[in-house]
Amino acid sequence: MNLITQTISRIRAVESSWAQRAAEKQLELTKPPKSLGKLEEIANRLCAIQETLAPRVEKREIYIFAASHGVSVENVSPYPSGVTRQMVLNFLRGGAAINAFAKIAAAGLTVIDIGVEGEIGETAFNFINAKIAHGTKNLAKGAAMTENEMLRAVEIGIKTAQAARKTGVQLIGLGEMGIGNTTAAAAITAALLKLAPEECVGRGTGADDAMLERKIEIVRRALEINQLEQADAFSILEKVGGLEIAGLVGLCLGAASERIAILADGFITTAAAALTVKICPAVKDYVFASHLSVERGHAALLTFIEQKPLFDLEMRLGEGTGAALAMNVIAAAVAAFNEMATFADANVSDKAN
Amino acid sequence: MNLITQTISRIRAVESSWAQRAAEKQLELTKPPKSLGKLEEIANRLCAIQETLAPRVEKREIYIFAASHGVSVENVSPYPSGVTRQMVLNFLRGGAAINAFAKIAAAGLTVIDIGVEGEIGETAFNFINAKIAHGTKNLAKGAAMTENEMLRAVEIGIKTAQAARKTGVQLIGLGEMGIGNTTAAAAITAALLKLAPEECVGRGTGADDAMLERKIEIVRRALEINQLEQADAFSILEKVGGLEIAGLVGLCLGAASERIAILADGFITTAAAALTVKICPAVKDYVFASHLSVERGHAALLTFIEQKPLFDLEMRLGEGTGAALAMNVIAAAVAAFNEMATFADANVSDKAN
Repeated sequence: MNLITQTISRIRAVESSWAQRAAEKQLELTKPPKSLGKLEEIANRLCAIQETLAPRVEKREIYIFAASHGVSVENVSPYPSGVTRQMVLNFLRGGAAINAFAKIAAAGLTVIDIGVEGEIGETAFNFINAKIAHGTKNLAKGAAMTENEMLRAVEIGIKTAQAARKTGVQLIGLGEMGIGNTTAAAAITAALLKLAPEECVGRGTGADDAMLERKIEIVRRALEINQLEQADAFSILEKVGGLEIAGLVGLCLGAASERIAILADGFITTAAAALTVKICPAVKDYVFASHLSVERGHAALLTFIEQKPLFDLEMRLGEGTGAALAMNVIAAAVAAFNEMATFADANVSDKAN
Repeated sequence: MNLITQTISRIRAVESSWAQRAAEKQLELTKPPKSLGKLEEIANRLCAIQETLAPRVEKREIYIFAASHGVSVENVSPYPSGVTRQMVLNFLRGGAAINAFAKIAAAGLTVIDIGVEGEIGETAFNFINAKIAHGTKNLAKGAAMTENEMLRAVEIGIKTAQAARKTGVQLIGLGEMGIGNTTAAAAITAALLKLAPEECVGRGTGADDAMLERKIEIVRRALEINQLEQADAFSILEKVGGLEIAGLVGLCLGAASERIAILADGFITTAAAALTVKICPAVKDYVFASHLSVERGHAALLTFIEQKPLFDLEMRLGEGTGAALAMNVIAAAVAAFNEMATFADANVSDKAN
């Protein structure tokens, strides 16, 4: 727990004075005041995160944590559990949606096997083998993982953030792959926000009505058998989380401690971000929402971390695709802030004149 | 009118069979069906526009039509009319928000003086001097332009689209600059959609309450004096439009006739797109909405052209900034469609297996 507690102790809320100074600079740029709307808030917050009036987001990286889920045996997904490993290979070979999106986002893509069932059996320059177990246990029958497994997964996430800092990453996109993980994320959401299972369970990759009912029942059982009424965030993560979600919690903790901005993706990564905010509320200063997922529990999680999504494109894919799409929005907000002329420099009449 | 009627006669609605074939291809790609939401619809429609299953949007160009507005004398904007010329110079020198955004969008930027008051007095490789007049007349006192001026402006837009086709442009972003043009766009919206002025008039670049009331009254007077109850789209454009809006109408007509996809920006460019759709309903197959502007009349125009905005970032700047932001969303939709592996090729289990 040493690395984790040390990391948490280093996290500071951002100083609002930076955002105020940034907002003052915005008023000098050749545009009507606040006419770039949320993009101005984004740039101002990045100034506060990076403690500068010249924020940078050129070096972007999407991290996909991948793990299998024991709950898959309960038939909660239309896809077999083996698809998690197959999709990791697809990521490494460049055939997934996130590969296409990362290119458009000018972002690197790192894939971390933190708990995929079976061996990946392939190497790639952007692949990290950090396998803790061959998937979680079935959360409907007991704890998904041991406390030790959970802590190790969080530590791997923290170390990933530390490595990101060393290579100069300025914007982290959260990504995940794990057949069954909308069930885990729904259980986390229900436990964390004290919501009923039916308020948190969605169709994931495409559950039909019968499967949706089964998912709700599985989440209900998971909450009961794991006795989560009074559980803290780490216990929720251990009992009904996933190894990839634990990795993402560590990544968020580590990124915040290193003052790196974080872009959440959809339901699963936002569940991880929400657990992290519960562990350390100051983390929310570092997290930006990207899109609003179709998945039912997502909006409640975004409210909890006090973030509004930048867009709603009816996406429900995960992998970090929403985060990747949002990266160019962040980049545009920063480019305008850094590159625009002032009224004075451009000889453009300001309102006052 | 010859070029205009010829152009309109060449516009064809897209064939839905292409979108259907594209939708079938989407099902083979390694993602749950429809999990990329609206991005799948975008890619499918681009297939229909370009009549291919390998659509391309690498070559993107934003066209800013700039013109001054006689109605500026009515004090409908917090900025003086001269800002239009000043901002054109700012575009040419790279100091505006759209310059920063275009870079992020990997898009070219062409600025067309179609009616700016005063001489620009500067040359640049991406600047076109197509000045028809030194601004419009005051639409609250009579017709904003003559029929001849309106037709010439539309023709310039058509020729711009023809030039775009020659240089291989695959995605056109609509941009505009013109102090006073939210008043013109509001009058167009009211006349075209038979709405009350107060439903169409917003704060533009930052009108206060008194200015907002004045704008509403000006639009009311413009509609009355110009007798627009039974007017067709070209008459509305002539009587209460702007030279830049007429240019954009031509650009939309030309782009549709050349089968080039069009990205609308905010209120003013969508008013132009809506007039174009009124002139030739098939144009709507070629137009994509980008963002939802804060400006009051925008949503009604989007409904009229049957487009949903991709995002709502509380922007109200114009210049093409929303279109630029949306270009990377379009690019991501196309990249996923073209580059993703199929379930069969990637050895990923589809649901059926």
